[in-house]
Amino acid sequence: MQIDDLDTPSVLVDLDRVEANLKRWQDYCDRHGIANRPHIKTHKLVEFARLQVALGAHGIACQKLGEAEVMADAGIDDILIPFNLLGRPKLERAVALAKRIRLILVADHAEVADPIGKAFAEAGMDVEMLVECDTGAKRNGTQSIEETVALARHIAATPGLRFAGLLTYPPPGGQPNVAAYFAETVERLKAHGIEAPILSSGGSPDMWTAHTQGWVTEHRSGTYIYGDRMQIRAGCIALEDCALHVLATVVSRPTADRAILDTGSKALTSDLAGLNGYGRIAEYPDAVIQGLSEEHGHVDLSAVQGPRPRIGERVRILPNHACPVSNLYDHVALCRGSNVETLAKVAARGRLT
Amino acid sequence: MQIDDLDTPSVLVDLDRVEANLKRWQDYCDRHGIANRPHIKTHKLVEFARLQVALGAHGIACQKLGEAEVMADAGIDDILIPFNLLGRPKLERAVALAKRIRLILVADHAEVADPIGKAFAEAGMDVEMLVECDTGAKRNGTQSIEETVALARHIAATPGLRFAGLLTYPPPGGQPNVAAYFAETVERLKAHGIEAPILSSGGSPDMWTAHTQGWVTEHRSGTYIYGDRMQIRAGCIALEDCALHVLATVVSRPTADRAILDTGSKALTSDLAGLNGYGRIAEYPDAVIQGLSEEHGHVDLSAVQGPRPRIGERVRILPNHACPVSNLYDHVALCRGSNVETLAKVAARGRLT
Repeated sequence: MQIDDLDTPSVLVDLDRVEANLKRWQDYCDRHGIANRPHIKTHKLVEFARLQVALGAHGIACQKLGEAEVMADAGIDDILIPFNLLGRPKLERAVALAKRIRLILVADHAEVADPIGKAFAEAGMDVEMLVECDTGAKRNGTQSIEETVALARHIAATPGLRFAGLLTYPPPGGQPNVAAYFAETVERLKAHGIEAPILSSGGSPDMWTAHTQGWVTEHRSGTYIYGDRMQIRAGCIALEDCALHVLATVVSRPTADRAILDTGSKALTSDLAGLNGYGRIAEYPDAVIQGLSEEHGHVDLSAVQGPRPRIGERVRILPNHACPVSNLYDHVALCRGSNVETLAKVAARGRLT
Repeated sequence: MQIDDLDTPSVLVDLDRVEANLKRWQDYCDRHGIANRPHIKTHKLVEFARLQVALGAHGIACQKLGEAEVMADAGIDDILIPFNLLGRPKLERAVALAKRIRLILVADHAEVADPIGKAFAEAGMDVEMLVECDTGAKRNGTQSIEETVALARHIAATPGLRFAGLLTYPPPGGQPNVAAYFAETVERLKAHGIEAPILSSGGSPDMWTAHTQGWVTEHRSGTYIYGDRMQIRAGCIALEDCALHVLATVVSRPTADRAILDTGSKALTSDLAGLNGYGRIAEYPDAVIQGLSEEHGHVDLSAVQGPRPRIGERVRILPNHACPVSNLYDHVALCRGSNVETLAKVAARGRLT
């Protein structure tokens, strides 16, 4: 099958670029002695999780337990879930999952850690657990070194849990403070006789400076596999390396300056992220996708010099944010040049729990 | 099964409210002699499409051909697709669909209409077609009465097509101009010997004044089945009638003023729509969901008087925009009181083409 045979909207993934992006980052991690633990939330594909591991990843990260179950079914045997798990149904599933793979969990409070410890202890098991630290991103996490050390000591003393280290999603540009935070925390844990083998950082925007931070033993990057307009703006990927596009059709040309695409918020997502428009049209880079209805992409052509798109013409859109786009499609087209090698099932899509 | 047995995030749909919302609007349409053609993009459920028809809807509207195919499989036999269909694969599917149901299509340009006419004529059929008119919403549509009349005459003269009327998605608050537009267009079509039996309006925001507009023979409303914060702001539904909520768990309480929910943009969507926050928490209406990561909902509790949510507590969120939320879930819980009657498959979800 050729790309020309696909109907629209469709997601096109360029396999040559994916492979180059994965290798570039794996090489960087290998060169600097950082364990690569890619976050599969970006692609949700078993094919690419396997490829990441084959290239040298130490395991993967999944944000949802349901995603981890899909990936374990596909043979991935080392999974971190950097998200607090709460409630009996999830804990029963976590125990079942840990019977067949290495599972690493997190907590930022004893009220999160204790039920997990109880569930694993009852099953006669223990599970590795990291403390999630809020180092400035203002999301989950302990709020001070004191809280972090206290929770680490609590985990180390709780049956069913094995303290395995620290984790953060650092604030972009906040590395100097984060480095000082981790240096002191590790020191104080040592004073209590507690080792922290895993020090896990995350996020794509600052990935290429991970080796300068001095504390990172493991990095969780997601978007680096595809890239998108947000990652270009952050300076961590080049336009010509971006691997995911949405194939769209121009369905209406009501005025000289207006085109309507068959890609609305249900095909591109509403993520604007402060960018100029909801995506970049490869064939018309000066066009602006200025608004989205659910099924319509509203394009302003006023800055386009030369020929403008005709009704029925197909275009490729680089999205602002690749991760939620993957999540909208049941299948994506894995392409080599103009050839569609596989219509791959987005197996972990919609695994909300 | 009880709501308490559901894991989070889950979508809860209150069946009593759905039934009351559907009846209220059907009664209004019946009272005013308007054909009710609900847009199923909001719910994407065969159960509710059937219920809408059973209550008196003249048919349904689907934005995507793939949604229409799902609904036809479920026994719905009268479907309008108010979206230009382009390209051989879609036209072949449209012909196949029209062999088993009444199908109505639209066009806003001869370049859209002609290939449809050719495909149907080749199959020895003709298909009803409406002209989509841009009456100020600045999306698809003919740009003047002249263009509309010319396209209607073209359709009426094209083999494979049967001109069936006019359609618009009116700009909110723009009804007086729209009424004048349709009055003149219908008059001019009559002068050419062309009848326009269907005059189709759309959109929930102005639905309750459709009878005052003088021209509307058919109305396509979608969101009225569930309601959401956008519809409350538009004044077309009351808070206590809103029927869809997202059940979430408080997974972290890092500070006194911050809670984190397990509902991010992949559970609530990024649709902000100028509202204060990404949804309303029923149990804490003064809390503000101020930001969303993909899997985290960031809640500002600073305005909450009295007790604040605990780790592990479950809350119900009224979303800003119900339609894209339905599109993120494979199943929704149809509830009567605290009882889950059905875990219904969102059968038309993800039908992007």
